[in-house]
This record gives sequence, C-alpha cells and structure tokens, in this order.
Amino acid sequence: MTEAGATLHRHVAELYPICRSITGAGLRATLRYIGAQIPLTLTEVPSGTRILDWEVPPEWVVRGARLATLDGRTVVDFADHTLHLLQYSEPVDRVVMRDELDAHLFSLPEQPTLIPYRTSYYARNWGFCLPHATRRALRDDAYRVRIDTALIDGSLTYGECALPGEEPGEVLISAHCCHPSLANDNLAAIAIAIDLAQWLAARRRRFTWRFLFAPGTVGAIAWLAANRDAPQRVRHGLVLTCLGDPAAPTYKQSRRRDAAIDRYVAYVLGGARILPFAPTGYDERQFCSPGFDLPMGCLMRSPAGTFPEYHTSADNPDFVRPEAMADSLRVLQEIAILIEHDRPWRNTAPYGEPQLGRRGLYAEQDRMALLWVLNLSDGRHTLLDIAERAGLPFASIRAAAQRLEHARLLEPAAA
Amino acid sequence: MTEAGATLHRHVAELYPICRSITGAGLRATLRYIGAQIPLTLTEVPSGTRILDWEVPPEWVVRGARLATLDGRTVVDFADHTLHLLQYSEPVDRVVMRDELDAHLFSLPEQPTLIPYRTSYYARNWGFCLPHATRRALRDDAYRVRIDTALIDGSLTYGECALPGEEPGEVLISAHCCHPSLANDNLAAIAIAIDLAQWLAARRRRFTWRFLFAPGTVGAIAWLAANRDAPQRVRHGLVLTCLGDPAAPTYKQSRRRDAAIDRYVAYVLGGARILPFAPTGYDERQFCSPGFDLPMGCLMRSPAGTFPEYHTSADNPDFVRPEAMADSLRVLQEIAILIEHDRPWRNTAPYGEPQLGRRGLYAEQDRMALLWVLNLSDGRHTLLDIAERAGLPFASIRAAAQRLEHARLLEPAAA
Amino acid sequence: MTEAGATLHRHVAELYPICRSITGAGLRATLRYIGAQIPLTLTEVPSGTRILDWEVPPEWVVRGARLATLDGRTVVDFADHTLHLLQYSEPVDRVVMRDELDAHLFSLPEQPTLIPYRTSYYARNWGFCLPHATRRALRDDAYRVRIDTALIDGSLTYGECALPGEEPGEVLISAHCCHPSLANDNLAAIAIAIDLAQWLAARRRRFTWRFLFAPGTVGAIAWLAANRDAPQRVRHGLVLTCLGDPAAPTYKQSRRRDAAIDRYVAYVLGGARILPFAPTGYDERQFCSPGFDLPMGCLMRSPAGTFPEYHTSADNPDFVRPEAMADSLRVLQEIAILIEHDRPWRNTAPYGEPQLGRRGLYAEQDRMALLWVLNLSDGRHTLLDIAERAGLPFASIRAAAQRLEHARLLEPAAA
Repeated sequence: MTEAGATLHRHVAELYPICRSITGAGLRATLRYIGAQIPLTLTEVPSGTRILDWEVPPEWVVRGARLATLDGRTVVDFADHTLHLLQYSEPVDRVVMRDELDAHLFSLPEQPTLIPYRTSYYARNWGFCLPHATRRALRDDAYRVRIDTALIDGSLTYGECALPGEEPGEVLISAHCCHPSLANDNLAAIAIAIDLAQWLAARRRRFTWRFLFAPGTVGAIAWLAANRDAPQRVRHGLVLTCLGDPAAPTYKQSRRRDAAIDRYVAYVLGGARILPFAPTGYDERQFCSPGFDLPMGCLMRSPAGTFPEYHTSADNPDFVRPEAMADSLRVLQEIAILIEHDRPWRNTAPYGEPQLGRRGLYAEQDRMALLWVLNLSDGRHTLLDIAERAGLPFASIRAAAQRLEHARLLEPAAA
Repeated sequence: MTEAGATLHRHVAELYPICRSITGAGLRATLRYIGAQIPLTLTEVPSGTRILDWEVPPEWVVRGARLATLDGRTVVDFADHTLHLLQYSEPVDRVVMRDELDAHLFSLPEQPTLIPYRTSYYARNWGFCLPHATRRALRDDAYRVRIDTALIDGSLTYGECALPGEEPGEVLISAHCCHPSLANDNLAAIAIAIDLAQWLAARRRRFTWRFLFAPGTVGAIAWLAANRDAPQRVRHGLVLTCLGDPAAPTYKQSRRRDAAIDRYVAYVLGGARILPFAPTGYDERQFCSPGFDLPMGCLMRSPAGTFPEYHTSADNPDFVRPEAMADSLRVLQEIAILIEHDRPWRNTAPYGEPQLGRRGLYAEQDRMALLWVLNLSDGRHTLLDIAERAGLPFASIRAAAQRLEHARLLEPAAA
Repeated sequence: MTEAGATLHRHVAELYPICRSITGAGLRATLRYIGAQIPLTLTEVPSGTRILDWEVPPEWVVRGARLATLDGRTVVDFADHTLHLLQYSEPVDRVVMRDELDAHLFSLPEQPTLIPYRTSYYARNWGFCLPHATRRALRDDAYRVRIDTALIDGSLTYGECALPGEEPGEVLISAHCCHPSLANDNLAAIAIAIDLAQWLAARRRRFTWRFLFAPGTVGAIAWLAANRDAPQRVRHGLVLTCLGDPAAPTYKQSRRRDAAIDRYVAYVLGGARILPFAPTGYDERQFCSPGFDLPMGCLMRSPAGTFPEYHTSADNPDFVRPEAMADSLRVLQEIAILIEHDRPWRNTAPYGEPQLGRRGLYAEQDRMALLWVLNLSDGRHTLLDIAERAGLPFASIRAAAQRLEHARLLEPAAA
C-alpha cells in the first residue's frame, strides 16, 4: 500500500461512521473534517429558500431511532448503523401493527444479509432499512416504533475550497457529500478531492481550482442558484464519484461531448471506458442542464448501480481499496496537468524553420518534438493537438515547448 | 388483404385500362378519377408555351390504331392494349412494305410474350409495340397500317391537391401520371398518394401538403415554370414511384443528401436500401436541378429498370400487391409524422433539472424520455435529434414532449 | 525504354559528375545545364545576407583534395569521386597523425564498399568520406592531407523558370540541386522537372508554373525571403525528390492535409502510398513553415532514408531507371491536368434539366457525365467533386464539361 493510498483510505475510515444527509449535523461534521485538511468556505442556505426550480427542504435532525418488540428486544437500532433509518423519516413514537409496519420496512430479498440505503426527502414518510433475514424473522403482531427526529426550519450547507490561479477561468471539481455510511459512494471521492486540492495548492496554477462539497441534487442546485455566471467562469469541470472500487477508471462525457475535458480524460484513459452523456447519474445532471451546459463530465471507477455493493451496507471501508484510490488520484493529477498546460503557443520565427543549430537546440534528442511544436504553433493548435498529430507523448511536446519558450522561439497565444 | 390494401388495389384496377400520355384525354380522365377522391385543381398549359428550357408539345389525340394483313386479319390492335401503340405516333393510313414496317415495330426478344412500352414524344415517328412471338410470325411482304391519331394545338394538364397547414412551408408529394397501362409505374403510387392525402386531410397539419399529379419530365417542368418560388416554399418533398411491387421500400436521396427528408426516410426504413442521388430517374431530376435544388428524394420499392416487368405489359394489376401498397402507405404515414412533429423545443426551466416530483412527472414510466427532452430542448435539437442521441423511439420522445408542453416545461422554438 | 525515359536518364548522366554544393561553381554549372533546356532566371544572394532566421553562408570553392600516404600513395582523391570530400571542408595542407585523422574520416561499416555523403555547412570542419574497406586498410601512423578549398565572400545561386498563365495564381514546383554525385537524390527529380516544364511550355496554361531549382534548406529559405508574398500567389505546389528509383510513387501531404494538391495527388495515385505531413524531410519543411503554410506536398518514389543506396555512392545513374522516371513524369502530367482543369462551372440553364435532345446531346454515349455536370455545376462543385460523386473518371467529366461549354450550357464560375 502506497502512502497516498493509506492517507486516502484513512479519510474514508474517519468519515464513514457519520450520518450524513442533504442537510443537518452529519453534513456539517463532514465539511468540518474536510475544512481541517484544506481551506473551506461554508455556505448555509435557509430552509425554504427558492433555488432555481426547487426549494431548500427543512433541515433533518436525528437523535435516534429504534424498532423493538413489545417486550423490549431491539430489532434494529440507528445507533448500530446509520443506514437503518430511512433518510428524512418523520418522528414516530407508537405501537404499530405488523401490517402497517411492513409498508415502512425496506430490505433486499436478493441480498438478505445487507442493509439497503433509502431516502424520502420530499414525500413525508418514515421507515427502517434492515437485512431481509432480520425482516423474515419478524413474527409478532405489533412492534414498538420510536423515531426521534425533527424537520426544522434550518439550512442546507455546502463547502467550497477555491485555489486562485494566474489567469481568468475556473476548474470546478464537485463531490456529493450527502450519503451516510457509504464508502465508495462517495467518501472515496471526497478523500481524493482533498488530496488533489492539497497537491494543487502546492503548485503554481494557471486556473482557479474550485472544489465543491455539496449534498447531491439540491446542493448542486443551491450552488448553481448562487452562481448563475458559472458558464462564464467554468472552463473545465469534473463530478467525482465512486472512485475507490477495484474497477478501472470510467469517464462519462459532458453534455457537449467534445469539450476539452472530454478530450483530456479520454487521452489520460487511453480512450478506454468512455461512456456517453445521459441526463441521469450524479450532479452532472444539474451542471449539464441546458441553461448552464458546463463543460463537466463525471469521473468514477464502477458506475453507480453496476456493482452489487451499491447503496448497501456492503459499500463499507473494506470495499474501497487504497491502491484504487491512489490510482484515481494519479489519473486526476494527469488530467490536471493537461488542463493547466494544454494551450496554443505562437512561433515567433514562423517564416521558414528557425536555425536551431546556432541556438544549441538542433542536436537535442527530441528534435522531432521541437520541430513539431515550431511547425504547428500558429495559435490554432494546442500542445495536445500537436502531441496527437505528431504521435508523441504530451509530456515530450510540453517539454519541447518549454525549451523553445526559453529560447524565445515561442510565446503564449490567446486560446 | 387489409382494407387499406384492397382500396389501393381498386384504384389501380380502375385506372389501368386508360391510355395516358404526357397530354390528352387519358391524362385528363385519370385526373378526373383522382379529383373524385380528393380535392384537385387542374391546370392546362397550352401547347407551345415556353416552360423553362422546354416547350409544351402538341396534344396527342388517339382514336384507334391497327396493324393488319392485307387480307384483313388483325396483327395488333390498340383497342386490345394501350401499349400496342408507340406513344405520340403520328397518323398513318397506308400499306407498308415489310422492310419499312420492321423499323417501326418494337418487341422484346428476351421476353417474347410481353408488349414493351415505348414513346417518341419529341422525334416524329409512328410504331407498334408487340410480343416478339407475334412479330416473328409475320411472313407477308406488306401490311396495312392504320393509326388514327392527331397532334393538335391543345394543352398539357396537371392536377394539384393542396391541404393547407397552420405554419408556413409546404411538403410536396409528386407522382407522375403519364404512363398508360402500367400498374406499378405509376398507378400504385397514384393510388397511395390519394390515400395519403385523405389520411392527412383528416388531421391537423403543421405544413401545407401539396400533391402533384403531372406527366413525367415535361409536367414537372411545367409546374416548376409556374412555381419558381418553390425553393422558398418547399421544406420537404418526395417523388413517389413503383410503390406496389413486392420488394422492400427503397429510398433515393435528394441532391442535398443531408436534407431532413433524407434523414426522416432513413430513420423510418431503419437505414436499409438507401441509394445515393443521381441526376437520372424520375422527376427528382427536375426538382433537384441546381436552380431549384428542392429537398426531395424518391420513394419506391423496386427501382425502375431493376424488375423484369418494368415497362412491359407484365406490369399489370396482378403484379402490384395490396399488402405491398399498404406497407408503402404505412411508411409514408410514418414519414409524415416525422415531417409534421420533428421540431426543436425550448425547456422553460433550463437552469438545473426542474423538480418533476411536484408536477407528478417523476414517477412516470418513461422518465428517461422526459429527462432527455428537458436536457436537450435548448432550441438547437429537434425531437429526432433527441431520440437518436437518447437511443429511444421517436414516438416516446414525442409523447414526453407533449406531456412536458402540457406541464408548461416546454415551448416551441424557432426551427 | 521509352523515349521519355531515355531523355530523362540522359539528363541524369550529364549532371552526375558535377560536384554540387549549397553554393559555388558546381551549383552554377548545374543551373547552366538546366538553363540550356528551359528558360531559367538566376539569382545570386551574397554571402552574409540575412534571409529570414538564417544567413547566407560563405561560398565554397573546391579545387581538389587528396589523402595520401607519406610516401605518396593516394588513399582517396576528390578527382575520383565528388563524395570523397566532406562538403564545406575547410582548407588543410599538412601531415596528420592517424588518431587525429580518424575523427575526420567517414565510412559505413555496414556497407563497406560504398562512399557515404556527408556535409558540415555550419560547423567548420574537414574530412574525407571513403569505403570502410579502404579505411580499415589504413596502417600508417601519419598521412598527408591536402584539401585545396576556400570559403569566400561569394553568393548562393538559385534558378527559376516561370511559365506565365492566363489567370492569376502560381504553381510552384521545387527540386533541390545541392547534392553532388547522387542520382536519385536529386538528379532524377531535376531531369523530370525539366521535361515537365517543356511539356507545359508547349500548352495553354491557366496558372503560371514556376520551377525552382535551389540548394536545399538555405536555398528555399533564400527564395522565401525574397518571396514573402508567396502565400498570396501559390495556389498549389510540389517538392520533387527521389523520383527515379524503382519503387511506386509516394506522396507526403502538405501541412494543411486537405489542400487541393493533396486531393489531386491522392486521386492520381489511387489513394495508395500517401504519407502524412511531418516537419522533416526536404524543403516542404520551409514551404510549410507556419508563416508561409503553402499548399505544397512532396512527390517521390522511395522516401529518403528508406533505400540502402540513400546518400551513398550506390545512388548513381545505374540506380535510377528510365521507366521509373518516365512513370514519375506521367504522374506529374496527370496532376498538372487536374491542377489546370479542375474548377467549378455554372450551369446556364439551371432550372430543370435543359432539353439536351434539341441540342443533339441527348444520345451521347456519355449522357451520365453530361447529366452529372449539369446537375452539380452550381459554382460550388469542381469537376473533380463531380467526378468523385458520379463515380466517373475525371477525363469523362472534363470532356462532358467541354461539350456543354461549347453548347453554351456551362460558363466558368469563380473558384
């Protein structure tokens, strides 16, 4: 296990026990943890605030929840696992007949030992999620239900870490942080976003990099409502999700399909495992809605719903792998290098070939890279364009551009 | 046999015996028959009228024609089959020596029992078309030729059925109606055009649908000469021909190749049997001449010249199949639905995803269609664009658009 | 051997013994030979003249060079082969110890009987090129080196043959003429350029054809420095090199990749042996530098460096084949026909099909070519566009256009 992998996995393990939701104390505790690693600005949006076509829901307070037999034996207790309680359950404190109870129980007949993850944010309801085996063992006519929750006039919280750059334009990295005890979905991505931000904070940056940690859907919508100018600012972006499982990295394209980010990720992944855009999934649905149409795709390993641990108690810290998380971080770093360094240059001696010999450049081992950069640096080709046409690695083309810039044979061109 | 197929075949059977030509009584009788089924406006263009690069030819009058032996035995008689007489034969009434006669006889050595179809509109000539077997049996030195025709100062006739639409723009459907007793070429198409017009007449229409029944080449040229503004009006169009034989439907693309009609027909045919444009064939040669360049392709089953019955007495009502004609009509109806309903819409809540739940739309079975229509309805994607990108049937996308329009989440966008 | 092949080979044989370089007497003698075949204008650019990013080097004068043993036995003598002397060797006249000498000897261990071709234009040096076998036989401790050369304040010479055309625009054909006794590289191309110029001189020409005979790199740069308006004038161009070996013709595309010349050559070669542009090779590096970006590719048979005779004494008149040179000339003539005759026309009767019958054109054997030319001559399709879409040979389409122009159905359109 590499050091990077160990650090990433430690973040997951620390955050796992917290009961996050789209609002509330668990969400704030998570943002506090992130804020201890990287500079984070929190925003609270009051319940009832109109955000685009939506409204901020009431804040959900959970103190405890227990389903028990009438003689006091615990069936399931929220204290044992945050998944046991249907998210946004309203308060209940009464004896419930078996038939009524059944409509409030959620289990997985095909995976009888696992607890499912269920929510009911907008339709008032209550319920318990439990292993199907436990459910099947229920024989009594009535049970004691006690759900000590409240839906209060509070607020929705999101956090932003903005690392300023030297040129205009932002890169938006978004990771949803509303899921309770689920490791791959989405603690692994949160952990990787923290490390990527730390890595970028230590480097010179062309763009401002903005990391957004917000609850899914309604959090992204709240951020977009406050950032209607996002299309003018965001040059590239990625939604990060499910980045810790052992599958190979997978990329879902932006709505635009031919945005620079689509090309960069495909280049880093060698063209494999690229999925077309669809208006479902994570917060790319919001960022890529037609009014915003941000150039943002979604980076993951296993896509949501395609692995049996998805949205169950099996998506725990044992399921996410340090080496997979380290690999996800490396992929993101390579993408970041492309985002930061792919740009057009202009050959300052474009008439004929400049005499490289008298500048000590002709004998260079990578003469081909030098000649290609000179030939195509007409302001219309970026370094990646040149790398792809030359059939040379981006790193070689970028190194050649640096040497030519140093020899004053290259100057930046407007993108 | 379906009712649609039976009706279509009845039209063919009724029209078959008439001796049509590019002018004259048979052409007018045919248009009268069509006018009894659908509202038809007739236009008479006088002989000698200059039409584009052409001139309206004299009108051809046929009263009878007979080739007989000198002792009075009939060899062929026009009264037996309209194909027996070379179209536009000039009058003759004399004894003709065998050698001279031979240059005026047309037969098919490879299909010795069939009568060929031959014309001589612009070079004055006379002649008889007959089975090669009959011709081979001619042994006399001289024969009696009597062709009772006239080429008079009359007119060329064409008919139009225009069904007005709610928006500007026309759809032009053209079927040539100059061929005498030939069923597939082109009575089947005439019959199908009649039924398609009736079907459209009973529906709300976005576009004006114009059905043109005109003699081939010179009739299309006469119509174009009177409709020099066609490029401004005609949004989509189809030439219909040979739509009754048992082969699968075939489409010849417009000169433009990427006109909407080319895409619509390819979509309905599933991409099969699409032929490239060529400046030969039927009246697409005129409609797609460079000065007009109308977005019109040609829908057929077997292309002209590719079936042995083509332009012979074997192209009779037995050759065209009720079920094939019914299938051609169905294909045209599906194309008509695309023409009428494929358009761009605009999402009225384009910032983020609208909250479908509170509008009762979220639980819909076809949530994917709803999300795709919302996501891509930015005024730049038509419903067919959306259907193809979503991988969903056009009908599902169209239904989703209707529900969203009803929920005021969609409004028409300028095309 | 055809007459064309014999003539071409004679040019090679005549020019072979001359010691060319990038400046000097041998270069001028070569240009004098060319000027005896076709009208040639010579330009002398003084040593030290600034040309783009470069400077004209001193002129190299060679009177003789000999490496001998101290007792007077000749090891190699420039009088025996021009390749024996490192190009641009500075004068030397002294006894040299074996160790020092070794750093100034060039041979090919893998091809021990051949003399290599080596230059040192910009780094002052001296040296002898010799068969590796001869080198291995050197046993003495010291040798007598006598190199009777001078680097003087002279000039660089290039020649141009411009055949004026009827319309604006030039076609630039360039062949480097700085290599000493090497037949394929580049005497074969020089010979073919001479014959192509003679062939074009005898024909009516649409474009001005300019043949440039200049030393490689620095000669092309000198010409470009004097012709900064080349991008405005040059419509098409080709660098000619290695056109005499037995391999099939090969084309390296222009930097633009989709220039008309790229299409013309690919059409003539049937799409085979087309190489992508790269900023290496011959003077296409200069002509296709980003400031000029001329629409010029490179026509050759075997690409430089891919045949064992390349840059050795084996590239002699026996290596180049009369029939291969005649074939190269034929390919260039076909390309020239496309360059001269591919253009858009405009149908003067674009509304409907013109009535070909009354113009005596309808019965023509090549009716398809006539119809295609009429249909697509809308000013936006060139004859090659039409030929490719029709699937007919360019020659047929061109012939049809000529007949239609004669019938006043076609007039030239602005390209």
